Amino acid sequence: MPEGRAGDAQAAPLSPETFARLKACSTATLTTQLFKRGLHNLFIQGACRQTRGGGTMVGPATTLRYIPAREDLDTLNVFEDRSHPQRRVVEDIPPGHVLVMDARGDTRAASAGHILLTRMHVRGAAGVVTDGSLRDLPEISEMDWPVYAAGGAAPTNLIHHHAVDIDTPIACGGVPVFPGDIVVGDAEGVVILPRHLAEDVAHDAVAQESFEAFVLEEVRAGRSIFGLYPPDEDTKRRYEALSGVRPKTHG
Amino acid sequence: MPEGRAGDAQAAPLSPETFARLKACSTATLTTQLFKRGLHNLFIQGACRQTRGGGTMVGPATTLRYIPAREDLDTLNVFEDRSHPQRRVVEDIPPGHVLVMDARGDTRAASAGHILLTRMHVRGAAGVVTDGSLRDLPEISEMDWPVYAAGGAAPTNLIHHHAVDIDTPIACGGVPVFPGDIVVGDAEGVVILPRHLAEDVAHDAVAQESFEAFVLEEVRAGRSIFGLYPPDEDTKRRYEALSGVRPKTHG
Amino acid sequence: MPEGRAGDAQAAPLSPETFARLKACSTATLTTQLFKRGLHNLFIQGACRQTRGGGTMVGPATTLRYIPAREDLDTLNVFEDRSHPQRRVVEDIPPGHVLVMDARGDTRAASAGHILLTRMHVRGAAGVVTDGSLRDLPEISEMDWPVYAAGGAAPTNLIHHHAVDIDTPIACGGVPVFPGDIVVGDAEGVVILPRHLAEDVAHDAVAQESFEAFVLEEVRAGRSIFGLYPPDEDTKRRYEALSGVRPKTHG
Amino acid sequence: MPEGRAGDAQAAPLSPETFARLKACSTATLTTQLFKRGLHNLFIQGACRQTRGGGTMVGPATTLRYIPAREDLDTLNVFEDRSHPQRRVVEDIPPGHVLVMDARGDTRAASAGHILLTRMHVRGAAGVVTDGSLRDLPEISEMDWPVYAAGGAAPTNLIHHHAVDIDTPIACGGVPVFPGDIVVGDAEGVVILPRHLAEDVAHDAVAQESFEAFVLEEVRAGRSIFGLYPPDEDTKRRYEALSGVRPKTHG
Amino acid sequence: MPEGRAGDAQAAPLSPETFARLKACSTATLTTQLFKRGLHNLFIQGACRQTRGGGTMVGPATTLRYIPAREDLDTLNVFEDRSHPQRRVVEDIPPGHVLVMDARGDTRAASAGHILLTRMHVRGAAGVVTDGSLRDLPEISEMDWPVYAAGGAAPTNLIHHHAVDIDTPIACGGVPVFPGDIVVGDAEGVVILPRHLAEDVAHDAVAQESFEAFVLEEVRAGRSIFGLYPPDEDTKRRYEALSGVRPKTHG
Amino acid sequence: MPEGRAGDAQAAPLSPETFARLKACSTATLTTQLFKRGLHNLFIQGACRQTRGGGTMVGPATTLRYIPAREDLDTLNVFEDRSHPQRRVVEDIPPGHVLVMDARGDTRAASAGHILLTRMHVRGAAGVVTDGSLRDLPEISEMDWPVYAAGGAAPTNLIHHHAVDIDTPIACGGVPVFPGDIVVGDAEGVVILPRHLAEDVAHDAVAQESFEAFVLEEVRAGRSIFGLYPPDEDTKRRYEALSGVRPKTHG
Repeated sequence: MPEGRAGDAQAAPLSPETFARLKACSTATLTTQLFKRGLHNLFIQGACRQTRGGGTMVGPATTLRYIPAREDLDTLNVFEDRSHPQRRVVEDIPPGHVLVMDARGDTRAASAGHILLTRMHVRGAAGVVTDGSLRDLPEISEMDWPVYAAGGAAPTNLIHHHAVDIDTPIACGGVPVFPGDIVVGDAEGVVILPRHLAEDVAHDAVAQESFEAFVLEEVRAGRSIFGLYPPDEDTKRRYEALSGVRPKTHG
Repeated sequence: MPEGRAGDAQAAPLSPETFARLKACSTATLTTQLFKRGLHNLFIQGACRQTRGGGTMVGPATTLRYIPAREDLDTLNVFEDRSHPQRRVVEDIPPGHVLVMDARGDTRAASAGHILLTRMHVRGAAGVVTDGSLRDLPEISEMDWPVYAAGGAAPTNLIHHHAVDIDTPIACGGVPVFPGDIVVGDAEGVVILPRHLAEDVAHDAVAQESFEAFVLEEVRAGRSIFGLYPPDEDTKRRYEALSGVRPKTHG
Repeated sequence: MPEGRAGDAQAAPLSPETFARLKACSTATLTTQLFKRGLHNLFIQGACRQTRGGGTMVGPATTLRYIPAREDLDTLNVFEDRSHPQRRVVEDIPPGHVLVMDARGDTRAASAGHILLTRMHVRGAAGVVTDGSLRDLPEISEMDWPVYAAGGAAPTNLIHHHAVDIDTPIACGGVPVFPGDIVVGDAEGVVILPRHLAEDVAHDAVAQESFEAFVLEEVRAGRSIFGLYPPDEDTKRRYEALSGVRPKTHG
Repeated sequence: MPEGRAGDAQAAPLSPETFARLKACSTATLTTQLFKRGLHNLFIQGACRQTRGGGTMVGPATTLRYIPAREDLDTLNVFEDRSHPQRRVVEDIPPGHVLVMDARGDTRAASAGHILLTRMHVRGAAGVVTDGSLRDLPEISEMDWPVYAAGGAAPTNLIHHHAVDIDTPIACGGVPVFPGDIVVGDAEGVVILPRHLAEDVAHDAVAQESFEAFVLEEVRAGRSIFGLYPPDEDTKRRYEALSGVRPKTHG
Repeated sequence: MPEGRAGDAQAAPLSPETFARLKACSTATLTTQLFKRGLHNLFIQGACRQTRGGGTMVGPATTLRYIPAREDLDTLNVFEDRSHPQRRVVEDIPPGHVLVMDARGDTRAASAGHILLTRMHVRGAAGVVTDGSLRDLPEISEMDWPVYAAGGAAPTNLIHHHAVDIDTPIACGGVPVFPGDIVVGDAEGVVILPRHLAEDVAHDAVAQESFEAFVLEEVRAGRSIFGLYPPDEDTKRRYEALSGVRPKTHG
Repeated sequence: MPEGRAGDAQAAPLSPETFARLKACSTATLTTQLFKRGLHNLFIQGACRQTRGGGTMVGPATTLRYIPAREDLDTLNVFEDRSHPQRRVVEDIPPGHVLVMDARGDTRAASAGHILLTRMHVRGAAGVVTDGSLRDLPEISEMDWPVYAAGGAAPTNLIHHHAVDIDTPIACGGVPVFPGDIVVGDAEGVVILPRHLAEDVAHDAVAQESFEAFVLEEVRAGRSIFGLYPPDEDTKRRYEALSGVRPKTHG
């Protein structure tokens, strides 16, 4: 795969089956599936769910990148320019996509606010993620839509952030994000699935979740984790009898 | 303005109009108004609202400054001395004022606890802000009063903080705070308004909020942000027809 | 006391009286009692209560220590080994004990997850504390059991943590924890009581809380903190008349 | 100026006069000149000079951007691909340019090492700046060439850094850097001059340095800074008599 | 000792004997003497010696305090005002005193530069300490005078620091510093001696250093540290025979 | 390999060939060899060489672990006890071993000082590494012996560190260190080689260094890195002709 072109904003959309599977999985399960495939660093650090409503977020990444602001460039009148990346992405993000912003983890000024998020919600975007802050967070927290941020900060993005480009590979919360990667978010946080792994990971994740639901029931009933989690031969047989599927040994 | 005397604890009180305007504004709007006036760094970083009740906090700053503790000076019997700054400020803070504490962002020990906050509440103070921690935070969170802190920590202030003076200019959450500055806090956080700007900022902030409420309605109705936020001539005309006021172009 | 043997996992259990007293005290009060005894650093920094249910946590510490992971050692199949420290401690922790984990404050990967915590809950452990993260935090937060962590993170512990031993002295949140130390947690956080001080601290803490409840009532009724907190002779007499006990001067 | 196009890698080269002036100025003087023009944040934080030889570094910026590595993309064989951005920039950087790398301040793995720096030195580049680490730093420190980094780290860039693009605007040490900006480095550190300000800043900086040399002589001779720095009328006259130039009042 | 008045800028000067003893001691020895007296936190964290010349620094503290800058207050013309605290302290610091600056550990902009330091050197000050940065550090590093800072940064103090007062108690590098405290600095760093302890600490420190020089010789000659450091009865006798003084057991 | 027993303090000593090879290699080369074997995190972060003399450090790890200090346990008289871990390890470390200390990256107080390091040097230890501080650093820096630390700090270890055990697996600078692992340090820093990989890594590292010396000569002579680094067929042939060995393609 050529460097710098790992992501593909024009990749084929997720099949309805994969989309439904990812909707049903936790980010904990997905990170274990990625770990099994040798990928250790795809859970975004520090971006927390800011809304209760909206359910699990699933969608391809559209990216927005900020660098530090410069006083002569970042003045209030820049927003009159329709090519300004922060405003353009709000109008251009495809329905079903998740906006992922690289704010360099700088929480002193907001990456965006309530009006822009509302516009994206109305336009059908699947959610928003930043490793920086959002402003109007009290209003945002009432939205029925998935929103993730490292915190809240009243100051406008122009004070510390200069929006520079759309749909380039970015860093977000210490994680590489390529346009078109599949972004999944639950109440725990956000995980990035490389596009080419999404189907396979989704398939195995559903199986893992089913087995772990069985494990949890057993544990609640008083069974020891030894021989159960991971399963020994006896546990595998019992689960297979119940579910018709043989569990994998690890995760 | 002479250095070190920018604040004035004896400044004229806010007019009822300005007070009412600030009560109705968000800190997000106020930081934009400050940005328009060239002031980029007056939103306190890291001090979060700890109470649900109490509404928007507005009042002049009374300051308390801590330096690191010294074991021979900071012993439990210091509180018998009525001139101890932490205890004195609790009894001396004027009604309507906000206590802003400089704890150097050190959250390991508390800046104050439930009893002292209750005393200030009873005495009519408008709220409390620290860039450090508070103790008894579970009880404090039930108060019907605005309280802001970077976190909760059980240990008494004496372990890491030595209260040193009242009503000197301080740092709080990376921001300069002069006695008499107007402190405004909502669910998002706390902004510091230099006293001489408070009236002007309050006036323009109300106008900005009114226009942004209109914008939000338009966005919810499906309108693009282009030409709306910031407004073009047509949007300005429509808003003026509705509200009787012509919106400013930026913020 | 010989170095490295300060803790004693086989220490005598707490008496029912001491246990009941600690159940009734706040960590704020306990840290003040420790401060009076010259102990300044026993409140765990950064580990927050993650559950509403479960009440005050009181129990002796069982410890688990992690060092950074190594890719050749920390693979998914390690959990098949029943001597793996993370899995062993879950099955071996004595009822009534609190599991305290040293994760070096590294929140990037979880110290444990919902299944293991459920097993410990079923087995009768008194609670769990980590200075790292937990995974499945949305499910954990519904448990009716005391759980403390610095945050939530979906990735499995194997990515960043290698479990190395059980019941050795550890660091947790900047604090020394010896096996058998008494761990007390409320909504504010977690304090560690050296085993040999637990009875004495519990006794004085109850007296302090009783006096502070009196102080709070007085403050709510409008009384100044001067002469009250700390008490002068008159306050001491009034409290003694009410309660039959003479308050100590400091804390 | 359109967003995202503030820099211009094809901008006109510096005139020999401006180049010579910048070679003679300190970064301290240049930051003061930028401050006078309202630019507060153009000194790269944390990138220290790693070599004694090479004199003052002056040249236009060529940029290289890293995001976090991904295990399936960042394997040793990527360097066989001649389009790999880290290797390509080494062969493509124009003589006289300075390579500025955005490593997100992550010093755990190197941004580059001795062999690549030697190649750029041979090819005539003017120097290298990273807000991350370099490897082979003991050998690099012997180079007769300007090199700046936040530290040294033996691990190869592939462990934590994925090279993603060349000559886009980047963040480096908390500062915005646009391709074509003029990079100046002395023993104190590195300052970024927006291309369109370079001539004007260079001119005034030389005048400031000349006046400050006069001030330093006066101070060494025992004169008070009052009336001298900043200069009063008398000082201005004396300096004008000596130098033939009237000093500006501020900086 | 009344709160907030622990320091005394008008305290009696050090006797020549004490001054000479402190000139001969290391900060390592002095911190041990303070530890023996229950003072754990008087070594300034993060302020490193920036000059080779100048020997051990000893003198009473004169303090300068900064808070964060505000754009409307911190403009270049403030230095025309002779009451500006940063400029005033340079002209007012008594000969033999050490200037200790509280820059809140913020190293992004300088606390002072070469011209002001030269003026203080000429005026006979004993040295300078900041927990922030200095500018012109390459020139400063050639001074034959004790200078301590956390780093070097070209930008002027006005960008991030507002000088607010002189000779109030301050925080520096996590340590409380009261005006008149005795400041001692060697190649390792800076320790603060409360004024009333200086004579006693100096006396015991000299004795400790003499004993440790004996210990080091013994260790170089191959002797075990057991029975030597700390000394047993036999070691004490041997040292007493050599030196005429009986060593204390601990440090 | 059973968990928690990865290291083996009694492992077979290094062969003279392997020892000599490691003495001749850089840590940069060794980390690349580890990366090729899937080990990404064995370079100790933040521990810098503090001495010029002593050459490359090579030896098996003896470990010492600290947890945070507790005031009642960590008093000056603890050193009279010959079983105190910090003092015992100094007398017990086998000749040729490297002492690696886990100070939790806490640099506020020293992990050890000049007298203890001198004793270990006399006893034939191969060097010392801490992720904390050392005291007496000015004297230590003159030693002709390898010493690594994150910094210098005058205060005694007892203030913040409680020595707890010897030769258990530890964390140092974010890296797992097992007793018996091979520790290699040059001017760049310290890398940990798992004992069972040491021979193989040493062998390949020597080959890599030889090839890279050839590459550096070619680069100095003006050759492009394309086809050279990594080598193409032609470069491989030329190197093989010169050296008699065929280079590996990657690192």
